[in-house]
Amino acid sequence: MTRPTISITTDFGHQGPFAAVMKAVIAGRCPNANVIDLTHDIPVHWPPEAGFWVARAYRYFPTGTVHVAVVDPGVGTERDIVAVDLNGHRFLAPDNGLLGALLDRHRDARCYRVDINAVCQRLALPEPSMTFHGRDLFAPMAAELAANRLPLAELGDLHKDWVPSQLDAPQRHAAEVIGTVVTIDTFGNLITNIDADCLAGLTDPVVLAGGLRLSMAATYGRVNPGDYLALINSFSVVEIARAESSASAGLGIGRGAPVRIVDAASTDR
Amino acid sequence: MTRPTISITTDFGHQGPFAAVMKAVIAGRCPNANVIDLTHDIPVHWPPEAGFWVARAYRYFPTGTVHVAVVDPGVGTERDIVAVDLNGHRFLAPDNGLLGALLDRHRDARCYRVDINAVCQRLALPEPSMTFHGRDLFAPMAAELAANRLPLAELGDLHKDWVPSQLDAPQRHAAEVIGTVVTIDTFGNLITNIDADCLAGLTDPVVLAGGLRLSMAATYGRVNPGDYLALINSFSVVEIARAESSASAGLGIGRGAPVRIVDAASTDR
Amino acid sequence: MTRPTISITTDFGHQGPFAAVMKAVIAGRCPNANVIDLTHDIPVHWPPEAGFWVARAYRYFPTGTVHVAVVDPGVGTERDIVAVDLNGHRFLAPDNGLLGALLDRHRDARCYRVDINAVCQRLALPEPSMTFHGRDLFAPMAAELAANRLPLAELGDLHKDWVPSQLDAPQRHAAEVIGTVVTIDTFGNLITNIDADCLAGLTDPVVLAGGLRLSMAATYGRVNPGDYLALINSFSVVEIARAESSASAGLGIGRGAPVRIVDAASTDR
Repeated sequence: MTRPTISITTDFGHQGPFAAVMKAVIAGRCPNANVIDLTHDIPVHWPPEAGFWVARAYRYFPTGTVHVAVVDPGVGTERDIVAVDLNGHRFLAPDNGLLGALLDRHRDARCYRVDINAVCQRLALPEPSMTFHGRDLFAPMAAELAANRLPLAELGDLHKDWVPSQLDAPQRHAAEVIGTVVTIDTFGNLITNIDADCLAGLTDPVVLAGGLRLSMAATYGRVNPGDYLALINSFSVVEIARAESSASAGLGIGRGAPVRIVDAASTDR
Repeated sequence: MTRPTISITTDFGHQGPFAAVMKAVIAGRCPNANVIDLTHDIPVHWPPEAGFWVARAYRYFPTGTVHVAVVDPGVGTERDIVAVDLNGHRFLAPDNGLLGALLDRHRDARCYRVDINAVCQRLALPEPSMTFHGRDLFAPMAAELAANRLPLAELGDLHKDWVPSQLDAPQRHAAEVIGTVVTIDTFGNLITNIDADCLAGLTDPVVLAGGLRLSMAATYGRVNPGDYLALINSFSVVEIARAESSASAGLGIGRGAPVRIVDAASTDR
Repeated sequence: MTRPTISITTDFGHQGPFAAVMKAVIAGRCPNANVIDLTHDIPVHWPPEAGFWVARAYRYFPTGTVHVAVVDPGVGTERDIVAVDLNGHRFLAPDNGLLGALLDRHRDARCYRVDINAVCQRLALPEPSMTFHGRDLFAPMAAELAANRLPLAELGDLHKDWVPSQLDAPQRHAAEVIGTVVTIDTFGNLITNIDADCLAGLTDPVVLAGGLRLSMAATYGRVNPGDYLALINSFSVVEIARAESSASAGLGIGRGAPVRIVDAASTDR
């Protein structure tokens, strides 16, 4: 049985019908689509966090899924829309850096600049509003991609000059890695952009953040309640947690906080 | 492929299984329904905001959609339930003014007063609880409507004396329109009940709200970050926004705030 | 038409893609499943509230539904996973007391201790992460159960020594019942763990909580706005409410608050 899957990521929150009307438009064009809300709680006007989660989560969806992410402060201006093909998954987002980190890490991704006028004509879309392209452009495109009536490669020309992410990639210098807290989950865990791969070669990695110096643990229950720990989380990035408590509240740090990882086995401290 | 669509709008929030058990009941009676949460974050006990969003959003759903809205402070008392047929869409709500604005604006809508006892008998429903008609009456009715086993016109008698909305419609006096902030979105945009149509005949509309005097702009990105603007939003109503910021927080106003629109081209200031 | 239903209950909140990737994994294995979010707003690390809602809500779902509940502070440690068969419904949860109350009340439930290694092998699962069994174990098991490819009884051995609930069951002493506020809904209603059955034999039950002494009412609209009332709610438990207002805010009490019910007709006060 084939049933196309679409994931939606936005900063719309849950007030008002904004995500719902995207799904309504999809229902009209691809009624059997399985639409999954990735999250609508991206901090408003902050594309990199949407891109982080899309990049980290997409692989758990069925091959062929269409991932739409709309964090779009420039809606209605000249900003472009990009469509990306990667490992059998398809992505749609404003070209505002949202997919920058994904595209930088996956050089085999094919990135197309959507020819918006041509798409509107092809899909017989009415003139889009100036303020809600999620409903007027992204949703119909996603539905048509999911229904396999619109090949992604026909959306526009391949290009390489996408807008880069507003968030720097982690930096590796000898036996030190410097990254950033990208997001905080409901538990108050501090989730960084430091991929497990970045730690390759560090014999005894120690995480420095919020004034703490933490060795790596395997899981929350391996330390005493209230204790802090660092771990490679289930999305393969470094996370700082506090067992049965909130690391973010306890340390008083959040998004954007710097995180440094050093090698305790190295002479370099 | 036909797959019926049902939208659900409530003030249940996301704590507890209240919306979920409505969907559970629908799943039992109309398993292939596509149930879309319009929003569950209507301010508690405030039907007009639910009615506003249902009226503004319904047209984006497939024809035939059943729109259920349950903001129901009078549940278990003598209040009626209304069923409405409009442009091929169907609506169910308590008769507490929730659908008042929709019915006032669409005089071609057919409004039925549901004969609750007859419906319970026809659908073989157990005695409904006194406090959760969303689950016990609205969900089974919506499912049967969606499954096309229950013609809406058989739910009860046509009537014209529905309870009016608790929120006044905008008033037009010569070159002036007076309306109200109905809702605030996640971005802090102040969304009014003033339809774009109300501005017909104003040569140079200027929006007065929160001490500001704003000309109309096309979209957020057309002013500098931090600047206020007024625009006709994607649901065709006047909205007051602040570029990349929150107009509501910045102006310190919210739901219920008066909004006046005058014609700068008129001598009547 | 058969379409399997899966309910998901977690403490993941709505930030991040945690619930979404559980649905993504389900989509890959059981694409036609109807996945219904029961709630993701269980207080973090508090299994009994998840168990309360699952136990109270499951009966509204179609027979055969798989109910997955993941409130799992011990993820990655030696804690077990239990699978329960009750009245044609199936339940999956960590063995941390989450299902304790349900199992205690339904002695006909069959409870299996999942042989995690055997299941991983049977479903060809990759090594599960140490921190997200919702995605790596619960979701694939739920999908396979829902698809009827994995008989629940083959998940492991029957057992009777599940971890009991962290929340005491209500106590009945002669003409008095003592229970606890388990949860608060969006309206501020205080929902207790005292089942209507507990009141059997009380001629004139009076609810004592937060310094108030309340007779039972039928529904919110039966008292004046602002007045407090006690009622048997739509899930058959005692609830303390305040008409068109928040009982929790008004009384300044919440989860864990003691609630006493006495018989005003009894000599015992």
